[in-house]
Amino acid sequence: MARNTDMHWRLPLVCILWELAMIVLFGVFVRFNPEADAAGWQKEKAQGNVTSDVENDFYFRYPSFQDVHVMIFVGFGFLMTFLQRYGFGAVGFNFLLAAFGVQWALLMQGWFHTFEHGKILIGVESMIGADFCVGSVCIAFGALLGKVSPVQLLIMTLFQVTLFSVNEYILLDLLHVKDAGGSMTIHTFGAYFGLTVTAVLYRPNLEQTKDKQGSVYHSDLFSMIGTLFLWMYWPSFNSAISNHGDAQHRAVINTYCSLAACVLTTVATSSLLQKKGSLNMVHIQNATLAGGVAVGTAAEMMLTPYGSLIVGAICGIVTTVGFVYITPFLASKLHIQDTCGIHNLHGMPGLIGGIVGASTAAAATEGEYGKKGLIQAFDFTGKYSSRTPVIQGGYQAAGIAVSLAMALAGGAIVGGILKLPFFGDPTDENCFEDNVYWEVPGDEESNLYCMNDSNTKTGTDH
Amino acid sequence: MARNTDMHWRLPLVCILWELAMIVLFGVFVRFNPEADAAGWQKEKAQGNVTSDVENDFYFRYPSFQDVHVMIFVGFGFLMTFLQRYGFGAVGFNFLLAAFGVQWALLMQGWFHTFEHGKILIGVESMIGADFCVGSVCIAFGALLGKVSPVQLLIMTLFQVTLFSVNEYILLDLLHVKDAGGSMTIHTFGAYFGLTVTAVLYRPNLEQTKDKQGSVYHSDLFSMIGTLFLWMYWPSFNSAISNHGDAQHRAVINTYCSLAACVLTTVATSSLLQKKGSLNMVHIQNATLAGGVAVGTAAEMMLTPYGSLIVGAICGIVTTVGFVYITPFLASKLHIQDTCGIHNLHGMPGLIGGIVGASTAAAATEGEYGKKGLIQAFDFTGKYSSRTPVIQGGYQAAGIAVSLAMALAGGAIVGGILKLPFFGDPTDENCFEDNVYWEVPGDEESNLYCMNDSNTKTGTDH
Amino acid sequence: MARNTDMHWRLPLVCILWELAMIVLFGVFVRFNPEADAAGWQKEKAQGNVTSDVENDFYFRYPSFQDVHVMIFVGFGFLMTFLQRYGFGAVGFNFLLAAFGVQWALLMQGWFHTFEHGKILIGVESMIGADFCVGSVCIAFGALLGKVSPVQLLIMTLFQVTLFSVNEYILLDLLHVKDAGGSMTIHTFGAYFGLTVTAVLYRPNLEQTKDKQGSVYHSDLFSMIGTLFLWMYWPSFNSAISNHGDAQHRAVINTYCSLAACVLTTVATSSLLQKKGSLNMVHIQNATLAGGVAVGTAAEMMLTPYGSLIVGAICGIVTTVGFVYITPFLASKLHIQDTCGIHNLHGMPGLIGGIVGASTAAAATEGEYGKKGLIQAFDFTGKYSSRTPVIQGGYQAAGIAVSLAMALAGGAIVGGILKLPFFGDPTDENCFEDNVYWEVPGDEESNLYCMNDSNTKTGTDH
Repeated sequence: MARNTDMHWRLPLVCILWELAMIVLFGVFVRFNPEADAAGWQKEKAQGNVTSDVENDFYFRYPSFQDVHVMIFVGFGFLMTFLQRYGFGAVGFNFLLAAFGVQWALLMQGWFHTFEHGKILIGVESMIGADFCVGSVCIAFGALLGKVSPVQLLIMTLFQVTLFSVNEYILLDLLHVKDAGGSMTIHTFGAYFGLTVTAVLYRPNLEQTKDKQGSVYHSDLFSMIGTLFLWMYWPSFNSAISNHGDAQHRAVINTYCSLAACVLTTVATSSLLQKKGSLNMVHIQNATLAGGVAVGTAAEMMLTPYGSLIVGAICGIVTTVGFVYITPFLASKLHIQDTCGIHNLHGMPGLIGGIVGASTAAAATEGEYGKKGLIQAFDFTGKYSSRTPVIQGGYQAAGIAVSLAMALAGGAIVGGILKLPFFGDPTDENCFEDNVYWEVPGDEESNLYCMNDSNTKTGTDH
Repeated sequence: MARNTDMHWRLPLVCILWELAMIVLFGVFVRFNPEADAAGWQKEKAQGNVTSDVENDFYFRYPSFQDVHVMIFVGFGFLMTFLQRYGFGAVGFNFLLAAFGVQWALLMQGWFHTFEHGKILIGVESMIGADFCVGSVCIAFGALLGKVSPVQLLIMTLFQVTLFSVNEYILLDLLHVKDAGGSMTIHTFGAYFGLTVTAVLYRPNLEQTKDKQGSVYHSDLFSMIGTLFLWMYWPSFNSAISNHGDAQHRAVINTYCSLAACVLTTVATSSLLQKKGSLNMVHIQNATLAGGVAVGTAAEMMLTPYGSLIVGAICGIVTTVGFVYITPFLASKLHIQDTCGIHNLHGMPGLIGGIVGASTAAAATEGEYGKKGLIQAFDFTGKYSSRTPVIQGGYQAAGIAVSLAMALAGGAIVGGILKLPFFGDPTDENCFEDNVYWEVPGDEESNLYCMNDSNTKTGTDH
Repeated sequence: MARNTDMHWRLPLVCILWELAMIVLFGVFVRFNPEADAAGWQKEKAQGNVTSDVENDFYFRYPSFQDVHVMIFVGFGFLMTFLQRYGFGAVGFNFLLAAFGVQWALLMQGWFHTFEHGKILIGVESMIGADFCVGSVCIAFGALLGKVSPVQLLIMTLFQVTLFSVNEYILLDLLHVKDAGGSMTIHTFGAYFGLTVTAVLYRPNLEQTKDKQGSVYHSDLFSMIGTLFLWMYWPSFNSAISNHGDAQHRAVINTYCSLAACVLTTVATSSLLQKKGSLNMVHIQNATLAGGVAVGTAAEMMLTPYGSLIVGAICGIVTTVGFVYITPFLASKLHIQDTCGIHNLHGMPGLIGGIVGASTAAAATEGEYGKKGLIQAFDFTGKYSSRTPVIQGGYQAAGIAVSLAMALAGGAIVGGILKLPFFGDPTDENCFEDNVYWEVPGDEESNLYCMNDSNTKTGTDH
């Protein structure tokens, strides 16, 4: 009650400050890489590094980038519209944090990965990386949905993107781990970061908004738009930054298989655990995606189609069971209020994905990959040329632990920051309610409409 | 009333059984093809079969595959959400059957087409093929929408995918027929299969649910999401498995033209046949797509843009007339209760598409295609090297008849199986109603909401 | 009251006439270009012009084409569904006019650009061009939304496509101006054309439908589907017809950056200008897109990522301010009733985009582009080989003026034609109301439903 949720000065201030910082930092640091640079591409051609425009990385990755882009903005955005009175916040705040996040991620990831002669050189792969990084913020947002202000989200995004990039650097560069679809860097990190933040921000009186924590018929359909675009484009997600050729091709097939299997076991488990065998939309909206999360690391490896089916089938069960038993347990016993159930969809399947990746890497043989193929697939070159698959598997496993540790420690710190009292978060009774931060349309008009215009009224809108 | 629609054990059992079977069969049979296999792709390169990663079939077909994928899951799924109280079933059951169907189709089509040394070798074209095959099941589902249980749908999918693959094998391999966009194999087969099944499952007392067979305002908008994604991506559908180069390019242009023409004649006919000239959403949602169906066979041939316009324009009229006159006739006289009107959108235009394809093939000349181009376009090689366009046209026509016969015979048998009394289909009064198989949200909450929270209520949701 | 909005004969007549004209003209003029033609592609290969199928322009542009296609049909269509009772009209009429428009645009643009030996040769770039052209009609439709009949829209499309093509020819061919993303040809032209038409069609008594000019909760969510698909795919829009290689790559990055910046400043400005700092959905739906419009000309140039951020950030502010202050001013003082606020989203940002393009061109150096790169980027060949960047900048600026002049003059004439009394436009009290031109579902059914079926009622639909 006492809390002030007025965003009048705070939100504009943070947005403008953040954006000005981006402009300055981009001005100082960010340039096109040679494949996007007019002079640079001319030089590449003149030097014979490429023989045709079609060899520009753009044509290998842009279709996948666009699919990933849809997943971040429509996929995550609409997936979270299932709440009956938080559709604007779901899709709108997701839009806001992702739009800021990609800019900051281009910088952070650029400093770590494509920093040359004082400049960050960006191209299509940088944009995919930025979208991936922001994906982990969207995941964390899922735990906090309806309980935080947009200012809190922008601050969280700033810190989470930073921590994501550090963690990613440790995994990909220091541990030399493979994680093309981000089971560890995106899902495990994003989920446990978000869960820790929500635990720190625990609200003991959230029960009073129980009615608003449910869906309505059409909000569930909006949410299915998100689900389906995530599901359909996940093969692009897991293959977007894999090596050209067979690796991208294989990652798509493995993900496709895993996702298909996942749907059947989700339906089976949902029906089994509900009274009268009815299906629960929450399970269909979420658990059908677990198969994509769980092959995030291994999809580009020789996981094989039937391996993918097994992983997907298991994860459909795990995630659905999580929604039925683990989410309520976390909320009541551990004070982790996980609005969207990200622990079920990203936490557990992310960990499984890390383990599957470590195992698949450890089991790799020259027979499967070819001598040259094995070196290429795991980049066993330079100072890593002495690595064997088994050792690689060990490093992969270490990557899971590092991601988890970074998420828990980072989440605790960032949660503490977000608890500061001047960020305008809603009171408990105002959670999950759009009209705190949005102009919600239609009050008077629609009443008027119902009363005076009965001639034209239809089944909707009143 | 007497019937038991409880899915508690039946649905989980079927899902788990089906999925276990898939895992075992994939384990025994399915492997990556050389373009997706690490060792295989290395070998291709070493042998000089390919000179660059960009020649991997993945880059020729993956963008089209993703468009097809969207058509199957969002396109068909949302197209069927027009019913006011069956949105969950439309999009959810479509999701379920398609996810199972693609796995089974990878096996069935694999045994027929890419079976080598005891293994099925899959790649991006296999996934397109699987999605295509499932498309025919989605079509058949359209006739049954709201009247069957998910268990029935899974059983139908098992049989229909099998029959589809046999029919496809007869057409493509034995008759050596061209049907890249599936006018015959997908649309004609899917539609008449579904119509036969629904005829066998005839429900005499369906009139009592007449109110639920209509749409509401927002359900019609959800349905338009499906329509538009189908319409926009249909050029990808008809070109996805065409030959590289000019054939894919041409198939896109022809389909684009046909679909554009179709919209205008649909609007014209709809307005003409409604009282006061008002447009009917059902027509717009469906008949605008008939142009894509009707060039499914001929799009990759030299149909020419104006030929495509003519075909599209005719089909917009035929389909709209079908909705106004033929669907009611089929229901009352032939006891064919076709929920979505698939006879109008897939049946008749599918037949027209077969005929257009046969004619276009028969009219092909070396002048149009070039000597080498003609051989390539129709694959007049090996034992087919003596075929002439006219003979090819004859075989194409035979393909229509075979597809129709397979659909009718197969549909009769599968309909008979689905009639068995233990699959949990709904009673007549429960048809077109989500709460038979789904937890439908909002009952208590929303009442509460309406009564206690009038302050925040808006034009929606109550 | 007196006006007759019955479409019974008028709409079918126009649709059929238009479509017949298309068929005849396509028959006479339109053929495949060599990349889509069977014989033509064989010849290209035989002559050694291409060495591999992957060099077919199809593979460079088709993924971008599909994204553009989604923007036109789902993007613009759903963006306009925000009105509570005009969703059918928004998405349906947009569908109709775009489907006709692309056919006519293929002809008009073909005559100007790819007319050889009496034939228009079309390929994937022609389809992109046609979609672009139609985009400008969709923009103009935004100003007229809810106030015109479908017959008026079809007539407007006929004229606007014609004028667009003439204007485009003047800019691209006579002035030799670069405008790959259409800041001038699409946005400036489309917006000021539409604004002029709506000014001519001024309705003094529109206040009485004030209630219907607002949104409802779920209509705003439908609209966000349009917004997000426009936002996500805008990089494809601005790069679709750029030169192969670095130019397409660069255009994507610049647009991505501009759009991201735009979101933050939109949120900031919206919050700042609303009472209590609440966000307004109208701003989020529209102003977040201004960054895409404003780099339409310069995106393929060496605008640089930070330049793009600056342009995007400014346009988010300009557009939001426009919605709050300029739209009401235009309506009350200049009698320009701009339903969707296209002046804010396309008018002002389009002009800014033209200016940014002219400046970026004028500032181009050989250092940035490379000697050969500069010639290639601006096509300083043939009779334009003596052009310098500064002169090019001057021509670019002239392009803005020409587009504006063509829009104002053309809009005045076409507005006058549309004012003729026999096109069936709605009366003032029937504006923004679907049931004038559509069968609107659900009246009786839904009442029945509410009364008799309280057992199954949910939070929606009553």
